[in-house]
Amino acid sequence: MSFEEMWAELLPVGRDAVTGGYHRFAWTPPELECRAWFADEARRRGLDLEHDPNGNMIAWWYPEDGSRTGAVLTGSHLDSVPGGGAFDGPLGIVSAFAAVDLLRERGVRPARPIGIGAFAEEEGARFGVACLGSRLLAGAIDPARARGLTDAGGHTFAEVVHNAGLDPHAIGPDEDLLGRIACYVELHVEQGRSLEQPVGVASAIVPHGRWRFDFAGEGNHAGTTGLPDRRDPMLPFAHMVIAAREAAERNGTVATVGKVRVEPNGVNAIPSAVTAWLDARGPADDAVRRTVLEVDEAARVAARPHRVSVDLAEESYTEIVDFNLALRDRVGAALGGVPVLPTGAGHDAGVLSARLPTAMLFVRNPTGVSHAPEEFAEPADRLAGVEALAAVLDDLARG
Amino acid sequence: MSFEEMWAELLPVGRDAVTGGYHRFAWTPPELECRAWFADEARRRGLDLEHDPNGNMIAWWYPEDGSRTGAVLTGSHLDSVPGGGAFDGPLGIVSAFAAVDLLRERGVRPARPIGIGAFAEEEGARFGVACLGSRLLAGAIDPARARGLTDAGGHTFAEVVHNAGLDPHAIGPDEDLLGRIACYVELHVEQGRSLEQPVGVASAIVPHGRWRFDFAGEGNHAGTTGLPDRRDPMLPFAHMVIAAREAAERNGTVATVGKVRVEPNGVNAIPSAVTAWLDARGPADDAVRRTVLEVDEAARVAARPHRVSVDLAEESYTEIVDFNLALRDRVGAALGGVPVLPTGAGHDAGVLSARLPTAMLFVRNPTGVSHAPEEFAEPADRLAGVEALAAVLDDLARG
Repeated sequence: MSFEEMWAELLPVGRDAVTGGYHRFAWTPPELECRAWFADEARRRGLDLEHDPNGNMIAWWYPEDGSRTGAVLTGSHLDSVPGGGAFDGPLGIVSAFAAVDLLRERGVRPARPIGIGAFAEEEGARFGVACLGSRLLAGAIDPARARGLTDAGGHTFAEVVHNAGLDPHAIGPDEDLLGRIACYVELHVEQGRSLEQPVGVASAIVPHGRWRFDFAGEGNHAGTTGLPDRRDPMLPFAHMVIAAREAAERNGTVATVGKVRVEPNGVNAIPSAVTAWLDARGPADDAVRRTVLEVDEAARVAARPHRVSVDLAEESYTEIVDFNLALRDRVGAALGGVPVLPTGAGHDAGVLSARLPTAMLFVRNPTGVSHAPEEFAEPADRLAGVEALAAVLDDLARG
Repeated sequence: MSFEEMWAELLPVGRDAVTGGYHRFAWTPPELECRAWFADEARRRGLDLEHDPNGNMIAWWYPEDGSRTGAVLTGSHLDSVPGGGAFDGPLGIVSAFAAVDLLRERGVRPARPIGIGAFAEEEGARFGVACLGSRLLAGAIDPARARGLTDAGGHTFAEVVHNAGLDPHAIGPDEDLLGRIACYVELHVEQGRSLEQPVGVASAIVPHGRWRFDFAGEGNHAGTTGLPDRRDPMLPFAHMVIAAREAAERNGTVATVGKVRVEPNGVNAIPSAVTAWLDARGPADDAVRRTVLEVDEAARVAARPHRVSVDLAEESYTEIVDFNLALRDRVGAALGGVPVLPTGAGHDAGVLSARLPTAMLFVRNPTGVSHAPEEFAEPADRLAGVEALAAVLDDLARG
């Protein structure tokens, strides 16, 4: 199976026929189909498939001496955001299989295990917490909290993983697995316009987080309720959206309101409640913190005259992640010098960096668009990514 | 079956156990259960059940001479807005059955047919056009347009009524039925705080309409897309919400954004599109028209710097409805003088007034809340409504 054959097999899975966007949410049928594809690719290559307790999968290529430790892990994720692109996640996994094929064709015999990981719920599109699989593995989220997370249909993470054959009481940090891994290198499509060569290396993941704003007013009839009698939560919500943009401009950050839930969401009903999610990221912790504080303050000021309450909850926050310098230098040396750039996107490599040396390779994205159908990497750049990943794995697995 | 027994039977149907709000959308299981209840109540009283071609039902009490014309129609609707109250619609139907019982107990023998109507999709909560059943009956909507209306699941009105046993090609004005009706009197819960006595009579329905704003931008990654590169439709949408309130204040109207749809609605994705519905009403056509124009202008001004397109579509608009003066006077006389008041809510009686003399009775609502669980009428006021409706039907059906 060449890269392009593998790519073509995955391409239709979970793709909306009208918009071209992907809907591969953790443990839903399209994502399960991607998982089955992953298991098939592992089997086809004689790789050993390990299911960890947290819904992550690793396909292992063990060295001839049978050693299981000091492993070099690569991989990414199979799930998508709603309406996402084809590359965010799957590019890293397909490239990893293709890199293993390349090493074998070249007769490379690694001295260390090489693993290809597929991490669960990286986007957080189903349960609201990004990188959930790697967070559980690394001990970066309380397993009890994870068990209680619910999806839009009201199903808990515990129920869903139970139905997927996992034991919800066994989830959490896996020290045995972590102890066998020496380092993690994730290849990912670049998500902005910053990379002008085919392949680059990550310096850092900028601070980023998600906050939930709950605006509670009073549902009422849109025709018979006079303006002074209204407690309409849509109005302070609107002010909050505008305040987020203004605060981002002031603080040199980015702030996005991409998800909204309106109750009851009827044309002729004043809403009783609006819930909005704020995604904020920036070059430094204090700039991001200040952005969120300013948005919160603006929301409260706007809510008061409408007698609407505002509740702010931090759903997740990740401080700046500086990737391991020694590993980055070694990866850079193996590639003979490539651009080094930070990213505004969170990744499993960021979560795992708290426990392991991690590094990231980026593949150029000519549209600069991500989390949308326009996300892209040219076929030639995809192959450059495979070559780069193969070179890095070859170097790291030498001993 | 007393009023309170009928009321208790309907009360749990389609009620959300958590919020107490009703979800009875046309031809969904809870609304079909309400329709079955209606048919049972008709059967129990020996009333003749007529299904018109448009999904409306009428339970007929025919006079002893067997005449079928010159009928007095009363009734209302069984469907609800999402999360609506118990009274909007069902109060008029339960009161109508109770009024028929009262007339029979008193030995009244009407000289004209008395009909109890249940009109389909009055709220427009499923297919987006309010009073769809009465509009089709009265010829106030093109049947081809109605057939093509879709619900949130993408099902057309034609499919849904076909599955409900109707012929989608037979929908449209029913001149035979209209020709048999002399007048229509609808009893309804009052939806504001204007009525201070148990029962009142409607003077007019103020001009009201629904407009859809489509904001189209470009979906992208919330973390990696710089502010200048964004085409975020959430921002002009937020300005439009604020502009709607300001335009309503300036023009002495009410304007509400109660329903929003965000694509793809992911926390970490800049939306590609936002669709918002504007409900606007006011004392005069020009004030409502000016409100909508000002909102549209503000939306376009806000959209331009974000390179977002704005598309405005009028989904429905109803000019002022002045109820038939002669009928209103006769109803008022039968009740011995009650308050006369306008309403900001649309009703089937408003639509049918283009074809028939129509009138409305309102029953006091102590909360002033409607389209929400707090919607209410005191038990004593409900019985006062039944007494008033019985008196009006008795008078109108005398000959």
